[in-house]
Amino acid sequence: MSDYVDGKLLIIGGAEDKKGECKILKRFIQEAGGRESVITVLTAATELPEQVGEEYQELFTKLGGGEIQVLDVADRGGANHESIVRELQKSSGVFFTGGDQLRITGMIGGTLLGKALHQLYERGVIIAGTSAGASVMSDTMIVGGEAGTPKKDTLTMAPGLGLLRSVVIDQHFAQRGRIGRLLMAVSQNPYVLGVGIDEDTSILVHSDGRFFVVGKNTVTVVDASPTIASNVSEISPGQALVLTPVLMHVLSEGYGFDLKRRVAHFHA
Amino acid sequence: MSDYVDGKLLIIGGAEDKKGECKILKRFIQEAGGRESVITVLTAATELPEQVGEEYQELFTKLGGGEIQVLDVADRGGANHESIVRELQKSSGVFFTGGDQLRITGMIGGTLLGKALHQLYERGVIIAGTSAGASVMSDTMIVGGEAGTPKKDTLTMAPGLGLLRSVVIDQHFAQRGRIGRLLMAVSQNPYVLGVGIDEDTSILVHSDGRFFVVGKNTVTVVDASPTIASNVSEISPGQALVLTPVLMHVLSEGYGFDLKRRVAHFHA
Repeated sequence: MSDYVDGKLLIIGGAEDKKGECKILKRFIQEAGGRESVITVLTAATELPEQVGEEYQELFTKLGGGEIQVLDVADRGGANHESIVRELQKSSGVFFTGGDQLRITGMIGGTLLGKALHQLYERGVIIAGTSAGASVMSDTMIVGGEAGTPKKDTLTMAPGLGLLRSVVIDQHFAQRGRIGRLLMAVSQNPYVLGVGIDEDTSILVHSDGRFFVVGKNTVTVVDASPTIASNVSEISPGQALVLTPVLMHVLSEGYGFDLKRRVAHFHA
Repeated sequence: MSDYVDGKLLIIGGAEDKKGECKILKRFIQEAGGRESVITVLTAATELPEQVGEEYQELFTKLGGGEIQVLDVADRGGANHESIVRELQKSSGVFFTGGDQLRITGMIGGTLLGKALHQLYERGVIIAGTSAGASVMSDTMIVGGEAGTPKKDTLTMAPGLGLLRSVVIDQHFAQRGRIGRLLMAVSQNPYVLGVGIDEDTSILVHSDGRFFVVGKNTVTVVDASPTIASNVSEISPGQALVLTPVLMHVLSEGYGFDLKRRVAHFHA
C-alpha cells in the first residue's frame, strides 16, 4: 500500500476563524462540493456534542454548505451501527471537531464507522479535523505533553486513525509553545516528519503527498532524518533532549511542502 | 579584529538554580577563581538593585566565592566615574543580573565602565549574565517580542554590549515559547546565529568560538544560513514568516557547539 491514496485531508491547528473571513472553513466547504456538498460533522472528540455540533451546523450552512448532518457517536456500539455507517457514506466531506483525541480513536478506531471513514477517504472525499480532530489524522498521534524544554517524560503518544502516514501532527502549535514536544516525538523515530500547525492555520494535503498552507499563521515542519547526534535512547525521565542537526521549515500561506521529498515549495 | 578574543562568557537563560546544586553559579565562581576570586555583581538591569545585589552577594559567598562586590550604577554619570571603573578593574569575574536589557546598554554602553568591561573580557576575565544580562552579550540583542507565531511586528531589537559577535541570544527560551521570535531575528540576517537558552541552563563560550552547555535544560541553535526561501523582506505587519530550510540544533549537557564552524560537538 502506498503512503498516499486518492484522498484529501484538511488538517487545522485549532481555533480556526468562525466570525470573520472564515477562510479555512470556506475552503473545506469548497473542497466538499459547496452547495452540492453533504457534510458530516463528527463530534466524537467533544464532551459537548450537541453544542459543538450545532455550532458547526450553523456555520457550515451560513458559509454555503449543502446538507449538513451531525453524527454524535456516544460509544463503540454506536460506531458499529449500520444506520450510522449509511449516514456517513453519503458524505462528500467529513469534519472532526476538537476535544480529546483519545475519545475519537477509542470510540471509532476499528469500528464499522472507522472502516467507512477510510473508504470515503480513499474515494477522494475530503476529511477535515481541527485541534484533537487534527491530531488523529496520523498513524501515531501526540496525546499529551508539556510545553517547554523537550524531555522524555512529558510526551505521550497513541495510535491515530492512520489517514496520513509517516507524519506526526501537533496543533495550537506556536500558541502553546509545542516545538519541544514535537521534537521529542520525531527524535523517537526520525522516519516520521513532525508537522506543527498554528491556530487558525491548516494544511490541505493532496493525494500525492504535497500540502499547502491555508490560514493566518505558520506551519512548522521538523525533519530529524539528517540528525547525527541524539540522546533519545539514553536519557532518563527529566533529562533534556539532544538532537542535532534537525531541518526545520517555517511556512505560511503561499507555501507548501512535499511530504515525500521533504522539501518546501512556493505556489501561486 | 577577530570575532573571538581571549575571553570567556557564561550566558544564562534566567531562573538559574539558587537553592539546590547551583551548578551554573558554582561554575561561574570556579571560572572566576574560586576562593581567590573578586566577583563584581552589576545590577544595572534591575529596578531593585539593593535586593538583587544582596541576594547574589550572599549566594556567591555561600557557594565559595572570594571577595564579592556589588556595583550599582544608577545612571550614565555613575558609569563614567573613575572610582567605579577602578572597582570593576579588580574583578576576576563579572556577573550581570536580570531585569531590563535596555537599562544595561542605556546606562553602560559607551561609558568608561563599558570600555573597562571590554578590556576585562579581552584579558580573559569571565563575564556572566542571566536573563536580560544574557541578552546584552551580543552585537544586536532582542529587546521585546511576543511568544507564538513568528511575525514581523512582534520583534524589537537594539544594539547590545557586543562581547559576542554574529550571534543573537534569547533567554527563558522554551519556558516562554520564544522560538518564533528567534527565527524572526535570524531571518532578518542569516549571517547571525540564533541561540535560545532555557531557564536554569547556560552556555560557557570559549575564546575559540566553541560553547558548552551547563545546566538542566536545552540550548537551541537556529542557523538560517542554508535558507533558500524567505518572505522577510516582503511581509507586512501581522503577516506570518516563511523561512525554509533552517538548521536547528537542540543541545543539552554533554554537548556543545562551534559558533565558527556551525556544528555541534560532544564533550566528556
